[in-house]
Amino acid sequence: MSFYDATVPAFLQILNSLSGLLTKAEAHCKVKNIQPEVLLGARLFPDMLPLNRQIQLASDFAAKGCARLTHSEVPSTPDTEKTFDELRQRLANTIEYVKTFKPAQFEGADTKDVTFPVGPNNSLTLKGQQFLNAFAFPNFYFHAATTHGILRHSGVEIGKRDFLGVS
Amino acid sequence: MSFYDATVPAFLQILNSLSGLLTKAEAHCKVKNIQPEVLLGARLFPDMLPLNRQIQLASDFAAKGCARLTHSEVPSTPDTEKTFDELRQRLANTIEYVKTFKPAQFEGADTKDVTFPVGPNNSLTLKGQQFLNAFAFPNFYFHAATTHGILRHSGVEIGKRDFLGVS
Repeated sequence: MSFYDATVPAFLQILNSLSGLLTKAEAHCKVKNIQPEVLLGARLFPDMLPLNRQIQLASDFAAKGCARLTHSEVPSTPDTEKTFDELRQRLANTIEYVKTFKPAQFEGADTKDVTFPVGPNNSLTLKGQQFLNAFAFPNFYFHAATTHGILRHSGVEIGKRDFLGVS
Repeated sequence: MSFYDATVPAFLQILNSLSGLLTKAEAHCKVKNIQPEVLLGARLFPDMLPLNRQIQLASDFAAKGCARLTHSEVPSTPDTEKTFDELRQRLANTIEYVKTFKPAQFEGADTKDVTFPVGPNNSLTLKGQQFLNAFAFPNFYFHAATTHGILRHSGVEIGKRDFLGVS
């Protein structure tokens, strides 16, 4: 299969599942009379990022990952979402963006250099495959699974099948 | 690059980082006078799996993932680890096992069928690339990131760089 097959479907699966997690989280707020902004601001520890930032970051690692791998213009999205609807729209926009990539754009991208920022003052150059393995995927799944962890810890009735998008 | 390059290094990076997370967690127990078995039994919610099981499952998704992709005998490891040393040994054994695979074993594996159990009574067949994207990677990263989440929630001073294995 192609490098496209190794990349785009993996992002899409979890971006879709995150949207489903948010829908279950919103329903939980309604049933339990929880203010949505409280759950969207929930964290696993006080100096960790809250739920809404986890969604924004997962979106960014997918969108920017595809852009960097294909040497496309890297999109920049302001992190303004404060409601369930807005976060689902962020995910929907990301899904739409990731779907715009064509397999041909990924041809040979696994062996091409990708230079990307690491922290405010440094950059790193890796081959596309290494960038995906060592940076884009682990960061993407990290924020996706942390989203699940925050919701689970907050009592939302979800499980790994929701994270995988197979429930 | 090869399908091997898309698989084995990704597993190894995070298996190694998990070992580092355990070392920091153990040091935290010593400094804070926490009984190791308490932290190893910590969960994000009462009906979630505890820390030691997250490590065992991450190990299994890496080891069994490589075995299924290469149509090798699928290893089965009893989940007996109850100490930091034993869990690091489990990770070390998994790393050693994953390292035994050769690139040639992965040649063409992306397009070959992989049949694997989903739940106690069902199995699913996917092409190798799809098995990796849709099942092996998301499950592997899920348990790895949940390990990070449990430790972070328990006050262990780690961050995403520890999860990525770059700190």
